[in-house]
Amino acid sequence: MRTLDLIIKKRSKERLSKEEIRFLVDGYTKGEVPDYQMSAFLMAVYFQGMDEQEASDLTEAMLYSGDVLDLSQIKGIKIDKHSTGGVGDKTSLVVGPLLASLGIKVAKMSGRGLGHTGGTLDKLESIPGYRIQLDETSFIRQVNEIGIALVGQTQELVPADKKLYALRDVTGTVESIPLIASSIMSKKLASGADVISLDVKVGSGAFMKNVESATKLAELMVQIGKRFGKKISAVLTNMDEPLGFAVGNSLEVIEAIQTLNGHGPKDFTELCLELAGHTLVDAQIAGNLEEAKKMLLAQIANKEGLYTLKKLVEAQGGDGDYILHPDRFTPAKYQKQILSGSTGYVHHIDALAIGNAAMLLGAGRAKMGDEIDHSVGIVLSCKVGDFVQKNDVIATIYSNREDVFAEEKMIAEAFCFQKDPTSSKLILKVVK
Amino acid sequence: MRTLDLIIKKRSKERLSKEEIRFLVDGYTKGEVPDYQMSAFLMAVYFQGMDEQEASDLTEAMLYSGDVLDLSQIKGIKIDKHSTGGVGDKTSLVVGPLLASLGIKVAKMSGRGLGHTGGTLDKLESIPGYRIQLDETSFIRQVNEIGIALVGQTQELVPADKKLYALRDVTGTVESIPLIASSIMSKKLASGADVISLDVKVGSGAFMKNVESATKLAELMVQIGKRFGKKISAVLTNMDEPLGFAVGNSLEVIEAIQTLNGHGPKDFTELCLELAGHTLVDAQIAGNLEEAKKMLLAQIANKEGLYTLKKLVEAQGGDGDYILHPDRFTPAKYQKQILSGSTGYVHHIDALAIGNAAMLLGAGRAKMGDEIDHSVGIVLSCKVGDFVQKNDVIATIYSNREDVFAEEKMIAEAFCFQKDPTSSKLILKVVK
Repeated sequence: MRTLDLIIKKRSKERLSKEEIRFLVDGYTKGEVPDYQMSAFLMAVYFQGMDEQEASDLTEAMLYSGDVLDLSQIKGIKIDKHSTGGVGDKTSLVVGPLLASLGIKVAKMSGRGLGHTGGTLDKLESIPGYRIQLDETSFIRQVNEIGIALVGQTQELVPADKKLYALRDVTGTVESIPLIASSIMSKKLASGADVISLDVKVGSGAFMKNVESATKLAELMVQIGKRFGKKISAVLTNMDEPLGFAVGNSLEVIEAIQTLNGHGPKDFTELCLELAGHTLVDAQIAGNLEEAKKMLLAQIANKEGLYTLKKLVEAQGGDGDYILHPDRFTPAKYQKQILSGSTGYVHHIDALAIGNAAMLLGAGRAKMGDEIDHSVGIVLSCKVGDFVQKNDVIATIYSNREDVFAEEKMIAEAFCFQKDPTSSKLILKVVK
Repeated sequence: MRTLDLIIKKRSKERLSKEEIRFLVDGYTKGEVPDYQMSAFLMAVYFQGMDEQEASDLTEAMLYSGDVLDLSQIKGIKIDKHSTGGVGDKTSLVVGPLLASLGIKVAKMSGRGLGHTGGTLDKLESIPGYRIQLDETSFIRQVNEIGIALVGQTQELVPADKKLYALRDVTGTVESIPLIASSIMSKKLASGADVISLDVKVGSGAFMKNVESATKLAELMVQIGKRFGKKISAVLTNMDEPLGFAVGNSLEVIEAIQTLNGHGPKDFTELCLELAGHTLVDAQIAGNLEEAKKMLLAQIANKEGLYTLKKLVEAQGGDGDYILHPDRFTPAKYQKQILSGSTGYVHHIDALAIGNAAMLLGAGRAKMGDEIDHSVGIVLSCKVGDFVQKNDVIATIYSNREDVFAEEKMIAEAFCFQKDPTSSKLILKVVK
């Protein structure tokens, strides 16, 4: 087999066999297929696509390029979730504890944030003492004992994806549905869960610009998941504004705590119930989505979700008292209110711009390895559909430096107003 | 400017500006744009194409990546020719001397052969003593004195093309019309001629599989040439059989000598007259093609073309007596006749297969730097349209090893017969 022939085959829109895909992925992981051939191949895939079988074979080849977690020592149903990358997306901090409080096992490995999207690990590290590294034995013991662990990677999962993603990032080959689907699914499959819940963001700031392409991505991921014997569902959600009000690490943890107390933002609470709800149905714990949501609301009302988050934090070395008393989080030194320049209905809040402004404040990383500041960020005062008068406060900047002129401008420009009210729908579609 | 943005721009079928194309080509030549980004860009060009302006800008960027020959010290009209790669194509050895004998200046740099196509330099080196390396001063002096020089590159012409071509070769991005056109034209423009004659091969064994795509390539090259102020014409020629009878270095030189004596193969003679004829018209030495061909036939009849070839060989250190007495070429040790297995009209002779068989015999290089054997090759005994009886000789192998079983089989299988006569047309189209 020659790499060149496989590039030409894909370029000519022919199907690649399982063996051919494995040859490319294994060869690339071992350094036998050079970057310049792989990038040409990826660009050919961008144009010619891959069918479901090829995408599934690519997922499998990447999956077996490294370790695959063995969660067989964990009793009960193991779940995992994934979001394609939102701004203000602290869903794991609410969905995980709620599901764990209902007896589902949440053995979740998360990542750090990069660019405009935050990472669950960074958010958790705003709680003093929280350790994201657990060895595999402790990880499994903790999930068996308290139902949940949220950690960084313990092993080298899916090294092929890591290497391929880095190459796609610099060669204009990120936006390919089969490549995105197999990248996400290889990682989800490697993490060993039985039930997988996916959140596919749709909108100008997301990878998927419209419902049509998001549906294709969701359907492909769900089909791949099913081929590997998983229960899987995908929810398409609107990204025409940040999720909830808070963007920034400790600010988002505080908002997650408010949500587990029943006082969360409407859109964010709705998304948590939807994602966790499908998981409960897929896990056959609830008969239907409505019943599932009722069970989840009960766990909010009785604070079981909140206590589970506290147990999680304490099990991983963090100070659990912060969960009951979020006022203990050290606030950023400066707070700067941003006033509206217009009167009208909020039509759109550019999530990408808000995420980038938060990154510039220090809440995120421009590049891997950058230090982040857990206390800084942005809290919105209004959401799409709200009516705002000129000079009303539309957002507050939390910063540890005084000059935030550039960020102020970015945030103010992220808001788009219209004379007439707009209705915004968060959940666009469910693919199962 | 960022390479990634330019890849995405081309991927999205947007036009690149002159500055953007120059940024990519200069960056790549200097090693600042890495192979893996360039190969992704090239694959995007494969799918999205380039318009005439972009192809012209790419040609210019490559042209100025290295030295450009200054032929201003040569008096008269300077010509150059190029073929997209044929089997048995010894045209330069006939066209060059014929034109030089008519006062046109042939200051030509040629290449070595690779794969199934032979190189003019390799053919000339079958003449004992012939030196392909001349310094620039001697090169120019020789052209002024005898009207012709056929040499290897004296300087680093178009290094960008050299590097890009090597990358295209291993990334499945060779077969792109704007990339082929700019690669050829950058080299032709760098070599400083006023009049350019192109031979675009068409057929299953050529880059261009059909007249339609060959026409596009020819038109694009002619347009680029005109933008640079050149007189230029392209002839589309059929590659459904090797050109002439002889394939292999000294065998082809002998056939060129026969042609300059007026005893050449019909198809090869026709092509030489056509290519040289357009050049005479473009150079305004002949009023039309018919007149031009008459002038050329006169130079064959009076042996002026032949004597010019002899002068060329002698000027470059070779033994000119070989041109007058081609029986002096040392024949290969073994000659093996191949007999027809069928009775019928020759319908097609796979030029690629014949070229590859000659390469295996030692007439060509499988990879750069391989040694070649000047005496070996293949001489056909029939051409497309001829009637052949079973057991008639259809070709003869010239080899320096006794066992040529594999090559015999390849050659026999290259012939395709039919019951009814086929008429074959060599010159398919002229693009000016």
